[in-house]
Amino acid sequence: MPTAENLSSKKPAAASVAPVGIALLGCGVVGSSVARLLAEKGGTYAERLGRPLSLVGAAVRDVRRARDVDPALLTTDAAALATMPDVHIVVEVMGGVKPARELLLAAIRAGKHVVTANKEVLARHGAELFAAAREAGVGVYFEGAVAGGIPLVLPLLRSMAANSVQGVFGIVNGTTNYILTRMSEEGAPYAEVLAEAQRLGYAEADPASDVEGHDAAYKIAILAGLISGRRVPIEGVGREGITQIAPVDLKYARDLNYAVKLLAIARRGADGRLEVRVNPAMIPVQHPLASIRLVTNAVAVKGDAVGEVVFSGPGAGGMPTASAVVADILNAAEALGGPGPLVAPGGNGDADLLPDREVVSAFYLRLTADDKPGVLGALGTRFGTHGVSIRLFVQRVAAEGKAELVFVTHPVAEGAFRDAIAKISNHSAIQKVECIIRVEDDV
Amino acid sequence: MPTAENLSSKKPAAASVAPVGIALLGCGVVGSSVARLLAEKGGTYAERLGRPLSLVGAAVRDVRRARDVDPALLTTDAAALATMPDVHIVVEVMGGVKPARELLLAAIRAGKHVVTANKEVLARHGAELFAAAREAGVGVYFEGAVAGGIPLVLPLLRSMAANSVQGVFGIVNGTTNYILTRMSEEGAPYAEVLAEAQRLGYAEADPASDVEGHDAAYKIAILAGLISGRRVPIEGVGREGITQIAPVDLKYARDLNYAVKLLAIARRGADGRLEVRVNPAMIPVQHPLASIRLVTNAVAVKGDAVGEVVFSGPGAGGMPTASAVVADILNAAEALGGPGPLVAPGGNGDADLLPDREVVSAFYLRLTADDKPGVLGALGTRFGTHGVSIRLFVQRVAAEGKAELVFVTHPVAEGAFRDAIAKISNHSAIQKVECIIRVEDDV
Repeated sequence: MPTAENLSSKKPAAASVAPVGIALLGCGVVGSSVARLLAEKGGTYAERLGRPLSLVGAAVRDVRRARDVDPALLTTDAAALATMPDVHIVVEVMGGVKPARELLLAAIRAGKHVVTANKEVLARHGAELFAAAREAGVGVYFEGAVAGGIPLVLPLLRSMAANSVQGVFGIVNGTTNYILTRMSEEGAPYAEVLAEAQRLGYAEADPASDVEGHDAAYKIAILAGLISGRRVPIEGVGREGITQIAPVDLKYARDLNYAVKLLAIARRGADGRLEVRVNPAMIPVQHPLASIRLVTNAVAVKGDAVGEVVFSGPGAGGMPTASAVVADILNAAEALGGPGPLVAPGGNGDADLLPDREVVSAFYLRLTADDKPGVLGALGTRFGTHGVSIRLFVQRVAAEGKAELVFVTHPVAEGAFRDAIAKISNHSAIQKVECIIRVEDDV
Repeated sequence: MPTAENLSSKKPAAASVAPVGIALLGCGVVGSSVARLLAEKGGTYAERLGRPLSLVGAAVRDVRRARDVDPALLTTDAAALATMPDVHIVVEVMGGVKPARELLLAAIRAGKHVVTANKEVLARHGAELFAAAREAGVGVYFEGAVAGGIPLVLPLLRSMAANSVQGVFGIVNGTTNYILTRMSEEGAPYAEVLAEAQRLGYAEADPASDVEGHDAAYKIAILAGLISGRRVPIEGVGREGITQIAPVDLKYARDLNYAVKLLAIARRGADGRLEVRVNPAMIPVQHPLASIRLVTNAVAVKGDAVGEVVFSGPGAGGMPTASAVVADILNAAEALGGPGPLVAPGGNGDADLLPDREVVSAFYLRLTADDKPGVLGALGTRFGTHGVSIRLFVQRVAAEGKAELVFVTHPVAEGAFRDAIAKISNHSAIQKVECIIRVEDDV
């Protein structure tokens, strides 16, 4: 039987050949987990590769802070480390654009294969990095940048290679899924669950990157690039967060047999344009993504041959992400001396993105209004004027003199819906548009 | 951005180089889907590879039956086709041991890379095939043999390469999952749902291979070989089917917050021994596998670095399986001329299997007895004698003079439990041991 520990048919004794030199840029939660795996499982990896992996150095900001790395290997000079002659693979796990972008470019230009778990630098500067790598003839590996420990990039590129991928639908942010799960299951308000998530380390002190959808937008931009073979500018990714959502919205969703998820979508339209967006979405409770709870991530991929395949697991965290990063290191090491990197750059120009206003879906809308006659008629007229047709309507008294109105529309272009909402907001009897959530019956 | 259509950095014009010759052995549901993909997407694949794929021939039993293949390519001489000089990759999709084993061996010995979707030949003769491939320096690719279209072999071997895999837990048979789902959701009896599954083409006229767990046993034997690197004799795989299960058992399970699935398990014990078995199991409703419905398959993999990752999707069917087979063809074609096949043989001897009697789990037991005093005491004594401790007990009158007794035990070695059951069956008041299902709280 083939085995993960015994893949290569030509295997010289590990000790007799030069090691594969690894440079680690960054040594935080993910970086120190990578260092731990390399130290603890180095023997197994060497056996698999037929040559040992050697951690040449780890670049950090402050060499005095204790880490899971031999202090003698620490350096503050990341640029020198990334281009050292006995380094073959540069592993960037620092995050952010600066100085990651420059360091990755320098490493690539020095002929190093690079592994990165940095979603932001890939989403913003992936095209530049891949072009440089293509020119230098090296590989860029980034399994850890998209869905933490969940295998996704390699399965998409290799295992689903027979397919044209029509769409990717993912829960790719654990923080927001944790918050939505607990709000839904316990009826707890957003602020309370967010505070709890922060206590548990599932949310940052400044939660904006997660709850406003930036993190998910980076990831879906990368995935959209993968399935289209084109550059997807991060500015073109539609993005809404979860801060507007109240427990009552999750209760309405449940009553309608939907679960609410922060969904990242990349979908090819019939006209060849690419729809790429992140937004809260109601999905049918029977859909495989609906039962993904708490910090678990999941990505559904639709291929024209295979149908729908779902990958789920831990989308963040030190060890899970290190699992993906070290797999990339092993894959890069195996490709060293081979005919070329496993994942080489594409470069077919920018994707033709579907503008937000043209995205068609049904919408859930909750608003509060003065509890007096004529309001519904006025709303109905404004919806009608903009071609928004109503599938479901619920009205109840929310408080003295205050009515809560909930609509679910039939599918409509977002532009027409937003125009109708703008008109409705202006009506004197409308107190507030409380919440808008897309209804995705066709994920 | 890298893309599935644009992977190779060195890409000569597709027309200027010799094609990769493909021989298809078998042209049934999967084989004709493979032929269709090669015909319809040949241009895309050629662009990816930098050289075209060419279907050299398809071996069938009867050349007069209409298929999705040019009749001029059909032959009944599979052995000649498999060893033809202009064939580089032999794709075996005939199923069964004879003549697949001999043909695969002949192809391997003739220096062909082989792709197979044949679980039975791999489970029974995998070690022999891998040894022959190692000797010949060719690859054996089998993504389609384990979970249909769900990427699993490559993610296990590559994406999870940083991990030691501790266990694999799968719903790997769509027929039985369809039957159990409908029995559970509708309360319909086994025979009725089986007949419906047969009408829909989800079950064979002779359903034994599915409902008695043979199909799942082949698959888990292959997966157990993958994670252990050792041969797992199919005879060593514990196996129980689903024919004993009644709607009432599924109702009890639901009341206890469990779902019943035909679960295939390969798990490394702390002592290094491998537990490999297929049996109906009650799993907590919150577990990701519990919500896998109808013909969908899913496999949960536990790695020491990543934690639990779940892969789900269509585990059977022509096009989904062809998606995996063609991915293997593309991967084999890319490895041609490279340093060696992606998946090369291991060969570390037989696995040390945990005997069934030593497998520890809790058990659900339903039996019918005469409705008279003293029965429960007699049962309790027998359980106690064999060290079986009871976690839950329910008794109700099933019919005039007939009592239904349901037990859930605490975890116990299967041998002790079976011994207790044997004694209990002999008691004069016991009418029938109706159903035994393992309770897996720790999947």
